[in-house]
Amino acid sequence: MSNIAAFGEVMMRLQVPGYETLAQGSKLNYSFSGSGVNVTAALSRYGHSGYMVTTLPDTPVGDAAMSYLRKLGIDISLVSRGGKHLGMYFLENGFGVRPGRVTYTDRLGSSFNTSAETSYDLAAIASSVDVLHLCGITLAMNEEVRSQMKRLAAAVKNAGGKVVFDCNYRPALWGAPGYAGARPHYEEMLNLADTVMMNEKDAEFILGIGSGEYGRITQLKHAVPEVARRFGIQTAAGTHREINADNTHSLTGYIYQADTFAFSRKLTFSVHDRIGAGDAFASGIIHGELQGYPLQQTVDLAAAAGMLAHTVVGDTALFTETEVRRALSDHIGDVER
Amino acid sequence: MSNIAAFGEVMMRLQVPGYETLAQGSKLNYSFSGSGVNVTAALSRYGHSGYMVTTLPDTPVGDAAMSYLRKLGIDISLVSRGGKHLGMYFLENGFGVRPGRVTYTDRLGSSFNTSAETSYDLAAIASSVDVLHLCGITLAMNEEVRSQMKRLAAAVKNAGGKVVFDCNYRPALWGAPGYAGARPHYEEMLNLADTVMMNEKDAEFILGIGSGEYGRITQLKHAVPEVARRFGIQTAAGTHREINADNTHSLTGYIYQADTFAFSRKLTFSVHDRIGAGDAFASGIIHGELQGYPLQQTVDLAAAAGMLAHTVVGDTALFTETEVRRALSDHIGDVER
Amino acid sequence: MSNIAAFGEVMMRLQVPGYETLAQGSKLNYSFSGSGVNVTAALSRYGHSGYMVTTLPDTPVGDAAMSYLRKLGIDISLVSRGGKHLGMYFLENGFGVRPGRVTYTDRLGSSFNTSAETSYDLAAIASSVDVLHLCGITLAMNEEVRSQMKRLAAAVKNAGGKVVFDCNYRPALWGAPGYAGARPHYEEMLNLADTVMMNEKDAEFILGIGSGEYGRITQLKHAVPEVARRFGIQTAAGTHREINADNTHSLTGYIYQADTFAFSRKLTFSVHDRIGAGDAFASGIIHGELQGYPLQQTVDLAAAAGMLAHTVVGDTALFTETEVRRALSDHIGDVER
Amino acid sequence: MSNIAAFGEVMMRLQVPGYETLAQGSKLNYSFSGSGVNVTAALSRYGHSGYMVTTLPDTPVGDAAMSYLRKLGIDISLVSRGGKHLGMYFLENGFGVRPGRVTYTDRLGSSFNTSAETSYDLAAIASSVDVLHLCGITLAMNEEVRSQMKRLAAAVKNAGGKVVFDCNYRPALWGAPGYAGARPHYEEMLNLADTVMMNEKDAEFILGIGSGEYGRITQLKHAVPEVARRFGIQTAAGTHREINADNTHSLTGYIYQADTFAFSRKLTFSVHDRIGAGDAFASGIIHGELQGYPLQQTVDLAAAAGMLAHTVVGDTALFTETEVRRALSDHIGDVER
Amino acid sequence: MSNIAAFGEVMMRLQVPGYETLAQGSKLNYSFSGSGVNVTAALSRYGHSGYMVTTLPDTPVGDAAMSYLRKLGIDISLVSRGGKHLGMYFLENGFGVRPGRVTYTDRLGSSFNTSAETSYDLAAIASSVDVLHLCGITLAMNEEVRSQMKRLAAAVKNAGGKVVFDCNYRPALWGAPGYAGARPHYEEMLNLADTVMMNEKDAEFILGIGSGEYGRITQLKHAVPEVARRFGIQTAAGTHREINADNTHSLTGYIYQADTFAFSRKLTFSVHDRIGAGDAFASGIIHGELQGYPLQQTVDLAAAAGMLAHTVVGDTALFTETEVRRALSDHIGDVER
Amino acid sequence: MSNIAAFGEVMMRLQVPGYETLAQGSKLNYSFSGSGVNVTAALSRYGHSGYMVTTLPDTPVGDAAMSYLRKLGIDISLVSRGGKHLGMYFLENGFGVRPGRVTYTDRLGSSFNTSAETSYDLAAIASSVDVLHLCGITLAMNEEVRSQMKRLAAAVKNAGGKVVFDCNYRPALWGAPGYAGARPHYEEMLNLADTVMMNEKDAEFILGIGSGEYGRITQLKHAVPEVARRFGIQTAAGTHREINADNTHSLTGYIYQADTFAFSRKLTFSVHDRIGAGDAFASGIIHGELQGYPLQQTVDLAAAAGMLAHTVVGDTALFTETEVRRALSDHIGDVER
Repeated sequence: MSNIAAFGEVMMRLQVPGYETLAQGSKLNYSFSGSGVNVTAALSRYGHSGYMVTTLPDTPVGDAAMSYLRKLGIDISLVSRGGKHLGMYFLENGFGVRPGRVTYTDRLGSSFNTSAETSYDLAAIASSVDVLHLCGITLAMNEEVRSQMKRLAAAVKNAGGKVVFDCNYRPALWGAPGYAGARPHYEEMLNLADTVMMNEKDAEFILGIGSGEYGRITQLKHAVPEVARRFGIQTAAGTHREINADNTHSLTGYIYQADTFAFSRKLTFSVHDRIGAGDAFASGIIHGELQGYPLQQTVDLAAAAGMLAHTVVGDTALFTETEVRRALSDHIGDVER
Repeated sequence: MSNIAAFGEVMMRLQVPGYETLAQGSKLNYSFSGSGVNVTAALSRYGHSGYMVTTLPDTPVGDAAMSYLRKLGIDISLVSRGGKHLGMYFLENGFGVRPGRVTYTDRLGSSFNTSAETSYDLAAIASSVDVLHLCGITLAMNEEVRSQMKRLAAAVKNAGGKVVFDCNYRPALWGAPGYAGARPHYEEMLNLADTVMMNEKDAEFILGIGSGEYGRITQLKHAVPEVARRFGIQTAAGTHREINADNTHSLTGYIYQADTFAFSRKLTFSVHDRIGAGDAFASGIIHGELQGYPLQQTVDLAAAAGMLAHTVVGDTALFTETEVRRALSDHIGDVER
Repeated sequence: MSNIAAFGEVMMRLQVPGYETLAQGSKLNYSFSGSGVNVTAALSRYGHSGYMVTTLPDTPVGDAAMSYLRKLGIDISLVSRGGKHLGMYFLENGFGVRPGRVTYTDRLGSSFNTSAETSYDLAAIASSVDVLHLCGITLAMNEEVRSQMKRLAAAVKNAGGKVVFDCNYRPALWGAPGYAGARPHYEEMLNLADTVMMNEKDAEFILGIGSGEYGRITQLKHAVPEVARRFGIQTAAGTHREINADNTHSLTGYIYQADTFAFSRKLTFSVHDRIGAGDAFASGIIHGELQGYPLQQTVDLAAAAGMLAHTVVGDTALFTETEVRRALSDHIGDVER
Repeated sequence: MSNIAAFGEVMMRLQVPGYETLAQGSKLNYSFSGSGVNVTAALSRYGHSGYMVTTLPDTPVGDAAMSYLRKLGIDISLVSRGGKHLGMYFLENGFGVRPGRVTYTDRLGSSFNTSAETSYDLAAIASSVDVLHLCGITLAMNEEVRSQMKRLAAAVKNAGGKVVFDCNYRPALWGAPGYAGARPHYEEMLNLADTVMMNEKDAEFILGIGSGEYGRITQLKHAVPEVARRFGIQTAAGTHREINADNTHSLTGYIYQADTFAFSRKLTFSVHDRIGAGDAFASGIIHGELQGYPLQQTVDLAAAAGMLAHTVVGDTALFTETEVRRALSDHIGDVER
Repeated sequence: MSNIAAFGEVMMRLQVPGYETLAQGSKLNYSFSGSGVNVTAALSRYGHSGYMVTTLPDTPVGDAAMSYLRKLGIDISLVSRGGKHLGMYFLENGFGVRPGRVTYTDRLGSSFNTSAETSYDLAAIASSVDVLHLCGITLAMNEEVRSQMKRLAAAVKNAGGKVVFDCNYRPALWGAPGYAGARPHYEEMLNLADTVMMNEKDAEFILGIGSGEYGRITQLKHAVPEVARRFGIQTAAGTHREINADNTHSLTGYIYQADTFAFSRKLTFSVHDRIGAGDAFASGIIHGELQGYPLQQTVDLAAAAGMLAHTVVGDTALFTETEVRRALSDHIGDVER
Repeated sequence: MSNIAAFGEVMMRLQVPGYETLAQGSKLNYSFSGSGVNVTAALSRYGHSGYMVTTLPDTPVGDAAMSYLRKLGIDISLVSRGGKHLGMYFLENGFGVRPGRVTYTDRLGSSFNTSAETSYDLAAIASSVDVLHLCGITLAMNEEVRSQMKRLAAAVKNAGGKVVFDCNYRPALWGAPGYAGARPHYEEMLNLADTVMMNEKDAEFILGIGSGEYGRITQLKHAVPEVARRFGIQTAAGTHREINADNTHSLTGYIYQADTFAFSRKLTFSVHDRIGAGDAFASGIIHGELQGYPLQQTVDLAAAAGMLAHTVVGDTALFTETEVRRALSDHIGDVER
């Protein structure tokens, strides 16, 4: 199996239990997550070694995050300690027509986002890692973090490792300049990446590639090869999500490689916790690639993993490959005993 | 914005969490509610000042109710303290084909229902209030409370305020005499009211107006104008509820004013907590009227507020007008972040 | 072993968990108790058959009480169903110098306190019972309940059973007339009773027997024989409680029979839940008497049972005789494993 | 009403609350159940007297089980105490496409499964029981238990009582020999039974009766009379379950007696807790038989009871006959108040 | 009664329930507090009107804080909404020899600490306020907040109101410059203040007044009059705390006015939650002063309020004057019922 | 820092929260512990690498144990998966004079106790380990486990590692033969051990060394050197515990090495959770030895660690060396903020 590292922020998730709002309740459940956490934990559960490259404060809150990462099966030997704070977000569950709400605390002041590049031994990390996972959320933070991210990606690439970049464009994080401000950084990352998680919207809005005239699949088939060509990307993958009238969601995964597209079946399912599903899909793609599975098997596995991620408590989905495969077989089973 | 007062009982709601019955469980969640509480809290959230006119015991239980009303945003400066008890009800959640159950304690002995008229300074209340909300549940309590209710309504009316009356006929509260016992009191209230929450069933069963031969809408269109004419009512409004086979509910709101009916779309939605939805609808009507919105806008707003009230924990729904409007736009959105 | 019945009210205890007040909290733990419940449950745990003679409402709340009594090991075959309500009390825990608070709901409207004498088959009960337990709290309720209580005591006595009466004078329940109002009823009960739970204060305040000039033990030794003589009581027993500066309590039990007093050691201990300790002591006395233990053994057992009752959650203490004996041996042991 | 005893194991159910897995959570809800527990508790709620014939350890865990059985309304006077352990199982709830999981502890070492026959006074039990309930799970345990089971069935039969046997074949419990190992024991039990809970699959797989070529109803109509004839069974009954794409389940009950089949409507419903539904159905059949209801009424009642059992927390469903009848009437009602 | 406003930050308190650490647990209890919150809530409970002058974010977290302040009885009509974040702190309870731990999030980025002076209408606030409460924690935040604080104090003073300043020096907040950096600001505040909460340590360390040679009381008697003289302070008050070997704390309050000292008895008590006790003492002093109580009565009341604050859950102690007086009478009472 | 492995069972601890008994409650908190778990986790927190050598079932329960070990900071790469069950124990908290209770499930059938020696690669383990921790509880299990334990100890010793053996004699585990049955195995282990956790009682009862005539310290000073001499033990260490009348405990640690004894101060403290304290002491001894601290520093550290272990939730105490040192300095500090 392989060594996968993710560079990114660890956030504390503070969730109001049940369906109360923050103004109604008095209790919170807390856990620690983040795109990199979700991906490295999922890959650890598939049998790989997942490492977080991040900075956590040397406080009881940071200690709690360390324990939680270990519990998820993540190797913490590359975690740096320093700074003062941990990014946090509050989560209020929605119900039916009432949407859930996410409220962030000031993540720009977090240990990760104020950490100096010297916190990380880039050369050492690069030499011990087969795959590096990066994400557009990290790219949106600040110039210093962006610089660390790009230099780490370059170091891994030079050392013979692969770079996975998840576009994950969040408008709220880029502020007024929006796509224009983000574009040069995205282009730089795409040039560094071997595998890219994206869809036709990323292509259109971030990169200006694509056309809005046709259906989403047509657009995807037009835009993705163009992006791959322009930036020298080996593999692209992503999902289309539909939210149905009965509150179920549907997910269709795709993967593109060597001029070929493969699509998963459209999977429809009930949703317990929507957050982290994209990371579960990405983990499935990375695992399939590392195992050398055929494209169709990889995208099926990744879509099923994404689906299962909607059925678990918390951002981070931990399933064995066997469990994912069983979910794909599509029989809603009776309780097993 | 306006000053709205509600005269009515504050009850303690004791709910078994989850789906256990009282015989199975060992814990209760408690909160404080009541028709007047729900209406004045909702109107406070819309930006008005909501006052409860009620009596609470001067005990730790009464103190807890006071705190809770304040938390809901209700002004408690018109609350009288005295008597010994608070009305309570136990709530066991149903699941699917198993119905929920409500068990009342003896509310007739409550501070509110044993309070003397001298507990309230009717003149002072009347002078400070733009709208007074009253409800058929209060009307069912006892002769003393009925007398207080009618005199307060008359005082508000004389001082230039408006009276809103919600028919809310509960058979269990009127005992053996049933409609016959209730009718004279309902007629008195309708004569005092400017705005009435009702539908064709209220017209038929309480007042003997209407005909059972046709569909509900036809009956409504026949009965409501007749009631309005007979009692000099300015505005009537109400809802039709359908309970669907898949456990969703559907709600259609109507409003009638100056010989004109407006109907909301039929809204269909999943239900978390059904209690208090009628009060949320009434609050929307009162708010629309106070803001001078067109009839269609008012009934749409009220119906959406009623729908949202089914998605919250507890009897009392607190939404801003912006949140209600967003729910009306009918897109089930992904989590916002 | 014997059949012991208790005639009395079953109340619902609604306790705020931890140290929050009702105004701060949002959750309650509920259980069902009462003097008779505590005594019959404790005696069941000692190996006897304990029966409640009471009336519970035929509602989900009454069903929950029935389940709870069964769980405690009480035989419910003599429970009558009817009426509307269950007496309830709220309990807020104190901490250190902050005292706990008890708030009652209207127990006079409870099923037990509004039940007609025809609810109980006095003859059948009398014939199946060796001991009947009654308490001064029940005596304070209303004339109808008092009448039932006295007639049941007489019936048991006539059928050859023994009557235990616990004075348990609660000033708040007797209102303005106070001792004067209570005295004739207490005298009637004392005439019916074989065993009486009391101390010198009961003698002095209720019966006007005793002198305030000397220490409590002296007063006790003066008053109790006088009461026993006057009312033909076979056995008297009770406790002296001291509350120490370090929040521990001390308990000394006494028993009087055939002109002889026996006293337990003064037991000092930490307190988790003070309510129900008197009933645990009474149960120990009844059990010792039924087993024919020597006076010293009986009062030691009863005092240790009373002490242990302070260490359990809830009003009702369930200990085997072995466990009580072990507590008497006075070694605070390490955890057993 | 009648006396029904069940011979079988009482297990401790340890359920992770909500939708967390054992690896995610830190809390468990516990209760005590088992096929016999579910049946005797349900029949007690219908008004009969239900007795468990089992062995529980004389430990705090065994005491907790005793309390729980009493709370369910079961008579524990036939329970033997001894041995060391209680069988346990962990339950993790599934969500949507993610199945629930059951993990057993070593039940073969439980007090029940290591108890000697001398623990039970077969003659006394037989003489006090109208109906004895037995189940295929118990039959799978070990030779000693099987022997106790058969001798008890024979004793009840000889004393004029009826024997109900629920086939309940669980492959995991019979290990490698599978049906072949189970068959002789099932045949012995069928010879002893008056009423058998089974369907065509039991007939085919356990007994080798039936043909897979046609639909399930056809098979059922072929196999059940054949089984009844061969083993001299008076009544056979059972259910067909379908799991629908929207996560609802459908249940169709059947009963066969004197060459006649009666089928319930197919009932479709949402599922809260699937475990124990078969026992609720069996209880309905036994109750209908004891009351002498017509076949159609019995099977309708049993199917509705089975449906309701899916809507409650825990394995054991407690409904009055009135509540079951109301569920049959098929109106999803609004909250009653 | 009077109008008291406090200018200061509202913080979110996130407490691990029980005795687990953040690394062990998964749940938090949350509430909202702060020095000003504690003081204005306590004074509201004494019958005054308490106003917070602060800025809260216009987010669900800010809404929750608003609800909580209302629940505490605080008037929120002077609260400004804006900025992005709320200051937060995590609290892990200690046990015995293991100390509790407080971990702050970045409060400098909070709405309060980033709010512009234009957020507050100083003139309007000054005209409606009898007493303004300020605290050394706020003084430590940043230059902008200090400027707002001083201008608001000056405005209140000019409008005829009184200024109360609680020294509350927290070394961690002033960083490297320490006392030297703080001194000029403290001197400015002392010049503006009518009443000052302080003790001899504040005098010595912050102002350089006092001598370390003698006992604390001697130092206090030397330093406080000197501070009062130098800065023209009318009233000074404060406490001495001792932490005893048995985990109890002892508190002695003092007040100084017109060359006279009054001291409370030394109160010794068990501690449930130590945070907020100083604010409870300050509230007692302010209340006594506003009521014109004799010095001895005021300091006794304040010390008892401080003691009681250690017995409640959360930072904010809500007691009526009657409850505080009862605690002073020093009898540890049995449960009242 | 060093690599420490512990060979032993991982048990699931099922604790009734608060002070309810199993018969009263309905919820359990679960965690995973064991002597080896406690030691390797504590040493990991001191900065070493701690490995468990054990077998866990390949079930969701085993997965939960794996996650929990990782969370504690234990390296799980030497854990074998197999077998069917996990040993479990139920824990009911005592209160004051009421003792806590521990109830075990059948641990002899656990994965660890039924695992074959081939589950472990003794040579590989031995080569990677500096210290091996073993315990008398494991020694009591069965012949196969004993054999594994001894062969692993020998392998580690041959590879140049150190062996720590904690006598931990539990009478209940050795059954009827008692000391006589245990003695040969203890002697074998003592011959293999470099460091032994023991006191004079172990010497006397297990080995027959020592004399009961004198005080415990005198006995200790007589017996320990004799044991060390006879078995060639380098270091012996242990504690004397006293349970005081006020429910506090006192602990005095000793260490013996090269004919020298060092004793810690007697530490007295309140107790939250007594289980696991001996393991915390042992961890302190091992850490001090590995760091080459003077004897006095080592025993002080170990005793303070043992004391702190009584203040935490759960069996496993995680403190940094800095935290332990701070506890030694003996100032009960105010909350730090």
